[in-house]
Parts: sequence; structure tokens; C-alpha cells
Amino acid sequence: MRATVLYAPRDVRVEDRPKPTLQQPTDVVIRTVATCVCGSDLWDYRGINKVTEPTPGGHEYVGIVEEAGNEVTGIKPGQLVVGSFFASDNTCPNCENGYQTSCLHREFVGGAQADYVRVPLADGTLVHVPGDVAEEHLPSLLACSDVMGTGWYAAVAAQVKPGDTVVAVGDGAVGLCAVIAAKELGAERIIAMSRHEPRQKLAREFGATDILAARGEEGVAQVKELTGGVGADAVLECVGTPESMQQALRSTRPGGNVGFVGVPHGVQIDGEELFFSHVALRGGPAPVRAFLPDLINRVLDGRINPGKVFDLELPLDQAAEGYQAMDERRAIKTLLRP
Amino acid sequence: MRATVLYAPRDVRVEDRPKPTLQQPTDVVIRTVATCVCGSDLWDYRGINKVTEPTPGGHEYVGIVEEAGNEVTGIKPGQLVVGSFFASDNTCPNCENGYQTSCLHREFVGGAQADYVRVPLADGTLVHVPGDVAEEHLPSLLACSDVMGTGWYAAVAAQVKPGDTVVAVGDGAVGLCAVIAAKELGAERIIAMSRHEPRQKLAREFGATDILAARGEEGVAQVKELTGGVGADAVLECVGTPESMQQALRSTRPGGNVGFVGVPHGVQIDGEELFFSHVALRGGPAPVRAFLPDLINRVLDGRINPGKVFDLELPLDQAAEGYQAMDERRAIKTLLRP
Repeated sequence: MRATVLYAPRDVRVEDRPKPTLQQPTDVVIRTVATCVCGSDLWDYRGINKVTEPTPGGHEYVGIVEEAGNEVTGIKPGQLVVGSFFASDNTCPNCENGYQTSCLHREFVGGAQADYVRVPLADGTLVHVPGDVAEEHLPSLLACSDVMGTGWYAAVAAQVKPGDTVVAVGDGAVGLCAVIAAKELGAERIIAMSRHEPRQKLAREFGATDILAARGEEGVAQVKELTGGVGADAVLECVGTPESMQQALRSTRPGGNVGFVGVPHGVQIDGEELFFSHVALRGGPAPVRAFLPDLINRVLDGRINPGKVFDLELPLDQAAEGYQAMDERRAIKTLLRP
Repeated sequence: MRATVLYAPRDVRVEDRPKPTLQQPTDVVIRTVATCVCGSDLWDYRGINKVTEPTPGGHEYVGIVEEAGNEVTGIKPGQLVVGSFFASDNTCPNCENGYQTSCLHREFVGGAQADYVRVPLADGTLVHVPGDVAEEHLPSLLACSDVMGTGWYAAVAAQVKPGDTVVAVGDGAVGLCAVIAAKELGAERIIAMSRHEPRQKLAREFGATDILAARGEEGVAQVKELTGGVGADAVLECVGTPESMQQALRSTRPGGNVGFVGVPHGVQIDGEELFFSHVALRGGPAPVRAFLPDLINRVLDGRINPGKVFDLELPLDQAAEGYQAMDERRAIKTLLRP
């Protein structure tokens, strides 16, 4: 089968690799219907995370179940399924507390930019999408696999409530999906930090009421100006750099919350500053599985359309161009069709 | 009037100083009935915070209103009052959000180890204790001025709920009051980290179900062992060192909360570790004012007795011995009578 492999910074190839097989009786193998390139894949692609060996890429997928292990009971061959980038049993204490990405038996689902993917702990990981799914819903279902689920978690972690003023830091696919989440959770004012016109436009379409192009202290000052001098109720940090984290913390009002979902790279938080800010902070790899059934329903009902973040669609064979376009910010997010 | 003044590390003197006067029409001057030495006073006393000039000590007080400015409407001369260490107007957006210690007009109330104290923004800061107050309640009312309010905030910031497993890190007066708070908020299991027998005893009296003497990684391992391997729902960090913060973060389950009220000294939090922990963190100077009416009622009803943390009572004149006893851990907390 075909699969993407990252050899070195900016060297992604589509190669022939062995089709995955069932390794545990709780596994399934799915035939990928749609997959994509993640902002977090760019950390490797750009050489910020060291690539020490050829590494299969991708962790987002919608697919048809091809084969199921004999202990899989809830998921059947032929079903259309969506899953998260972490497999989870969905029964351990951490799963029961709603943190499936801290599942005691979690396993990363890698190599999804391929014709087939093995998904461990299938019953706990995958959600069946019922009925005849219209082609137009596929990109949004794929978005639920990571970026929409992650934006949702940012808003949940930041405890967004009806009437809140919310700031989204980061105008990548996750930041844009965080705008959708804030709107769905009832935020009254949604300030998107973005300096790229097409992303500003999409942010508005998703529910942003204000767009701010400024960053750093200037960005903080503008948020304060829009919020009576005190800061936002909730700030969704969707980047992961020291600068974006600082901007997020300083844009939040005392008693407010930061949800941070950009994987931190070199971020150190000063305890004394955090103390006197009165701001709460929760982050982590999004427990997408917790939100998937609800998100899938919102997609099928037409309430949300996160698939719009895919502004480039390519056949899997052209994955290298898909990475490059995102790296150069020519594309927000690239959908790949096997 | 008499007042304590810190001249240099371990050099506290009781001196004659001018009686404070009304400076703003929103001020009152109170005659102190009881005051005390705070664990945070020890940061200065021990020379960890630099003392650059002779500094009046103390910020905890119960007193009788002596004189009120002509814009003070809710508080009357002759009333017994309790207040927080930060004066607050109790009307600004941050106060309305319940964070009076981030009041836009906040002012530190220092020099409370004295015969008289000036309290700014009296209507927003002070709470009148109604009725004839029994002498036995005075220590507990004094505790509400800071340590009980701070322990309460630790539990609120850590979102303690009925049925929770809670850990208190730190067996100073605040850590012990945090045990009271956890119990009042319905925690089922309360693990107090303490290696000092009299404090262990008081922790049990306040509601601790388990005592752990271990610290650091060993302490974390023992908390994990008591919590099915996952960690506690809520951890109350009442110390403020890098070690105590790390212990708190690592003792918390994914999805759990740390409330941190020990003023951080040299604490840096690694963003990546916090991310993958799924733990939320909120701290700050406790908005004691938000909790005072409720805490005072609990004291007068006999539900809580945080005054027990005062295991040494001295006349104000002997304040130096009061500091020294706490520094040497011969006393948990010293009450001073003017």
C-alpha cells in the first residue's frame, strides 16, 4: 500500500509499504477514505522536532473498517468510522474522567497518511458514523478526528460559558476550529488573533466577532481595550510557542481560564506571574474521543462545518506538495485522498 | 501606639509609632483586638525576601472600628470587623467576578501587628461580625482574615467537589486550613502531607483521613498508591517552593486540579510537562473577601474551628518571640494580643 514517510526536514515521500495487519484481538484495520496533514506534523517537517529515522506520517483519518479482531464487538467491517490520534480503551479511570488521551492503555495511532491504518483498542477508540454519509460531510468528519476535537477541548479546558468573551490565539486549523467551539458553547464575543486575510475571513464565517492582527504586548493591549481593561474570560492558546503562551496568559482576566492545545515547544511558565494573574491553565492532547459522538452529530446536522479548514485537497500521491503548501502558509490544511 | 517593625533578617522590634489616621473618606481606623504572624511574614524574616528599610509587620486582623471616613456607609464605629490583607472596592469587574485580590483599586493592608490599623476602602473590605461574639471565637475569626480564607481558596481553585480525593501539600496553618476547606466542600478522602506529629494530629482533627510523611517523588508515589495509580482529584499547594509545586502537579490525576496558594519563590513550570499531565492550575493571593461572610457564619455556627492553628498566644510586646517560635517550627502560628 501507499504511505507517506518523512526522511528528513522537508523530505516527505509517498512509498510502498506493507499493509498493516491485526496484531491484537482488539485491533481493526481500516481502509482510509480521507486523511490529512496536521499543523503538528510541521514540527517534524521543519526539523524543530528531530527526525532520527524514516517516519510514517499522519494521525487523522476517516475510513471504512476492513477487518476486525475477534474481541472487537462494537465496530463491524464495512462501517464508516472516525477515531482520535490516541487509541484508548474508554473504560479506565482516566477515560471515565473524560481524558481518553491519558488512557492507561493509550497508544498513538500513527501512519494514517496511507491506504490502510491499524487502529488499536477499536471499541474504545472509534465512533461509527451512521447512515449514508454525504460526500460533502467527509472533510468535516475528518476534521473531527483532530483539529475540531482539539479546538473543542481548548474551549472546554478554558471553561467557555454562554455570554463569555473569548480570544483564540493562533489562526491555524485548530485556532479556527476553536472559534467554532467557542461559538457553539455560547460565547458572545469571539476575538480571533490573525494577520492573514483568508484566515480572518474564515474566522468570521466560523463566528469571530472581532479580528486583531497585533501580536505580543500590542495584541494583549488591544484585547484589554476590547474588554474594559480587564481581559477576556477565556483564551484558547492554539500555537505552542513561548510568545503565544505569554500572549494568552496576559490576555486573560483575573479568574479567567486559558485552554492550551498547541504542543508547547520551549514554554516555561513563571510561577509568580501565574500566581498574581489569578488565571487558570489547562492543556494537553485533546481527549477527542470524549467529544466525537457530539461533534459528529453537529456535523451531520449541519450545525458546524469545520471541513472548511481544508483549503487544499490532493491525491495521497502528492502529499509532499500538501506539506509544502502548509509550511509556506499557502494552505491552512491539506486533505489527502488515498 | 505600639507596632512591630522588621529591621533586618530575624530582627523584629516592637516600637512606638504614630497612630494611623484617616487619609481618604473611604478609610476606617480600627483598634486591633487580635492579630498574628503569617507564614508569608517568614519570607521577609528569614531574609529570603530582601528587607531594604524598616518595615511594619502583619496583615491579619480582627478589630473594633474606631473612626470612619465620611464616605463609609456600611461599617460603623464600635463594630467588630474582620478584613482581608488586600483592601478592595468590591464593585469593580474583578471584584464582581470574585477576585477581590485583583481589585482594580486594591491596596495592601500592612502594619496590622499594631494597636491600630488603617483599612482603606472599608465598605468593600471589611465584614461586620454581628452580635456578642464569644471570646472563644476570636482566634477563628482572626484565622478567617487570611489562613482560613487562603485554605478555602486553595480548595475552590482546585474545584474540590463532594466525593473527591484531595491532597494538601504543606502542613503550615494554610495547609491545615485547606484540610478544613476540603472537608467542608465534601471531599471524601483527604490526604495531608506532614511529618510533624502535632500538625498531623491537628490535620486529623480537621478532617484528614490519611497522613503521608514522604515528600518529593516518594510522596507522589504514595499518593498514587492510595488513588488506584491515577492521582488525586484535587491537590492544594500551600508552600510555594519548586519542590512543593512539582510534588503537587505530579500527585494530581489527569483532568484534576491544583490550587496553589503558597506565594511562589523560584517556581518555573515546564509547559510540556503541564500539557501532557492534563492537570489544571489556578493560584493567587486568596480573594478572602469573597469567602468572609460564609466563613464567619461557619465559625459562629461552630462548624469550623480554624483558630486551633494558633498554638502560641503572646502579648504584642513579645512579637519577636512569636516570630522566632514559628521560624523554628516550635509554633504553627502565633496570635498576638495588643
